[in-house]
Amino acid sequence: MSTHELYAVVMAGGSGTRFWPASRKTLPKQFLPISGSKVMIRDTVDRLKGLVPPERILVVTGAVHAPLVGRHLRKLPPENVLCEPVGRNTTPCVAWAAAEIARRSPASVQIVLPSDHVIRPPAKFRRTLAAAAEEAADSGALLTLGVRPTFPSTGYGYIECGDLLHTRPGAAVHEVSRFVEKPDSERAEGFLRSGRFLWNAGIFVWSTASILAALREHAATTLSGIEQILRAGDDQTLARVWPNLPSVAIDVAVMEKARSVRVVPIEFEWSDVGSWTALPDVHPADEHAHVIAGGAQLLAQDASNCIAYGPKGEIIALLGVRDLVVVHSGKVTLVIPRERAQDVRALVAELEKRDPRFI
Amino acid sequence: MSTHELYAVVMAGGSGTRFWPASRKTLPKQFLPISGSKVMIRDTVDRLKGLVPPERILVVTGAVHAPLVGRHLRKLPPENVLCEPVGRNTTPCVAWAAAEIARRSPASVQIVLPSDHVIRPPAKFRRTLAAAAEEAADSGALLTLGVRPTFPSTGYGYIECGDLLHTRPGAAVHEVSRFVEKPDSERAEGFLRSGRFLWNAGIFVWSTASILAALREHAATTLSGIEQILRAGDDQTLARVWPNLPSVAIDVAVMEKARSVRVVPIEFEWSDVGSWTALPDVHPADEHAHVIAGGAQLLAQDASNCIAYGPKGEIIALLGVRDLVVVHSGKVTLVIPRERAQDVRALVAELEKRDPRFI
Repeated sequence: MSTHELYAVVMAGGSGTRFWPASRKTLPKQFLPISGSKVMIRDTVDRLKGLVPPERILVVTGAVHAPLVGRHLRKLPPENVLCEPVGRNTTPCVAWAAAEIARRSPASVQIVLPSDHVIRPPAKFRRTLAAAAEEAADSGALLTLGVRPTFPSTGYGYIECGDLLHTRPGAAVHEVSRFVEKPDSERAEGFLRSGRFLWNAGIFVWSTASILAALREHAATTLSGIEQILRAGDDQTLARVWPNLPSVAIDVAVMEKARSVRVVPIEFEWSDVGSWTALPDVHPADEHAHVIAGGAQLLAQDASNCIAYGPKGEIIALLGVRDLVVVHSGKVTLVIPRERAQDVRALVAELEKRDPRFI
Repeated sequence: MSTHELYAVVMAGGSGTRFWPASRKTLPKQFLPISGSKVMIRDTVDRLKGLVPPERILVVTGAVHAPLVGRHLRKLPPENVLCEPVGRNTTPCVAWAAAEIARRSPASVQIVLPSDHVIRPPAKFRRTLAAAAEEAADSGALLTLGVRPTFPSTGYGYIECGDLLHTRPGAAVHEVSRFVEKPDSERAEGFLRSGRFLWNAGIFVWSTASILAALREHAATTLSGIEQILRAGDDQTLARVWPNLPSVAIDVAVMEKARSVRVVPIEFEWSDVGSWTALPDVHPADEHAHVIAGGAQLLAQDASNCIAYGPKGEIIALLGVRDLVVVHSGKVTLVIPRERAQDVRALVAELEKRDPRFI
């Protein structure tokens, strides 16, 4: 067993409208209790307990969200919060965290993961991460975790799994045949049937040396921009250089091109909880197929199959309705059929013109 | 033209659940802005402006609601608020106000009216009341206002209109053939077809001397209880005597029995706004047949025929739904089909057991 310091990089730069009106520009999904009683970023960090201590967890987030990180992650040292002046996708984020960790511990291994996924049980997750970290340290490969598809999703990128290289306790390590970007539904059906394809979950494990080498080879502009920022060490340089870094996903910039990439199919429960209709994936339904989240109480009569969300201390009362999403959050009440939940963005677009205070 | 001081008695003792979750035990409908931007009791008092000055308006309300009366009717002298220890229907309420007004102005005429109706336009209403007051002063009769039915309601009492006695500017005064309590739907159909029946709107006009004489004849127990309360003039007597007064509507106790009763069919717009589904009667609908009230903004796409209610500064957002009642008020969100709006009482009944803080 190799000895290396293990770091974690929590990517918390996301902002979206799919959980509006609970999520807002100033309050993205990772800061909401979508999956349980705690906010998702807190669950993400707690899930690493026993594997990575708080002083080796870095969070990369938008500058406007830094106070939220501080409030929800009180044990995190303030210098471990990296504040992006603007969102530039995941490559600058990964490069910044990698370079920062290299200064602190050049021989370390890193886990890079989103802040807004649901993963259960935590012990199984940590076991897989620990095995993947060993693999990364020993092989120098860039590892990604892959999720066995349960339906022909057109919303995820796919990884074609290659030969099994070897099995560690908690992780079967495979070669990667190829990465495939979000497919159309026909291709997705084929991927599902073949049994060889995994969803790209956006969870990576690599040694600090390996990711820096890969960035230098495939994303040189970004890495040199980051090095310039770190050398200067001031906000002015960050504010000047960062916005000009290419906005590219790390999958596209590095993973699809790097020579030594491996995948570990996961054996634990995973969901990225992509919209209101994903709540039943992570919350038990009651006997009428209702799901309630956010802390509110549900009061339902002669109703079924509804998804309700509201803050603690509030009530969502439903009578004679079915298949609805009902949300109350921050002075907005939303009612929309489950099958149209993705159209919430149309309401947000109209509100952007009419009254942007609510988005 | 007779000379008499005109008083008004606003009956604000009502408490119901039909506007839950906006209405609560501690906040009945008359204290909500159901019909416009002001609370209903304020509209009721403002509507009398120019006819009855604030110092001659008495409000009878539940003791727990007295602070709300004070907050919404700042010009009303505090001694004009009569606080019922418990609700005993309208006969004790009418008797108390009548006896109190008799002490201040024995030769006066009174208008007695509910606090939670919508009546438009106010000028036409005042003209009818002024004419009815003249009639009451001149004739000594007990007058009631009658509403021409627009559908065969089984929710109102009816008045069979007798011969036209005479016409004053603003009021045609008829004899009353009989009062009929809430009919079944077949009788209601017949009443509507006959053209002779009016809804009993619960708005009365009478001289103080006449109503006291009628109470002494037909509700002697109640009136002597009230006189005992006024003589003692202390809260202890009120608290001891009041709860034992018979709980009867003034229509049943007096109007149906009194000898000289007359009715004035109204020529203005009237609604008692009996439930959420009555909101379209008093609010203009938008081009998609939505009605929004309470002060909230409506944001609707691909939706129609919904009734929405929420406080000022909030948004009700609807997409892909129709024929719903959607309410947010006081930490409760309600979603119910329009045609089942009366079933809101079933939710309240369940909550009474589960968490009475919300009712």
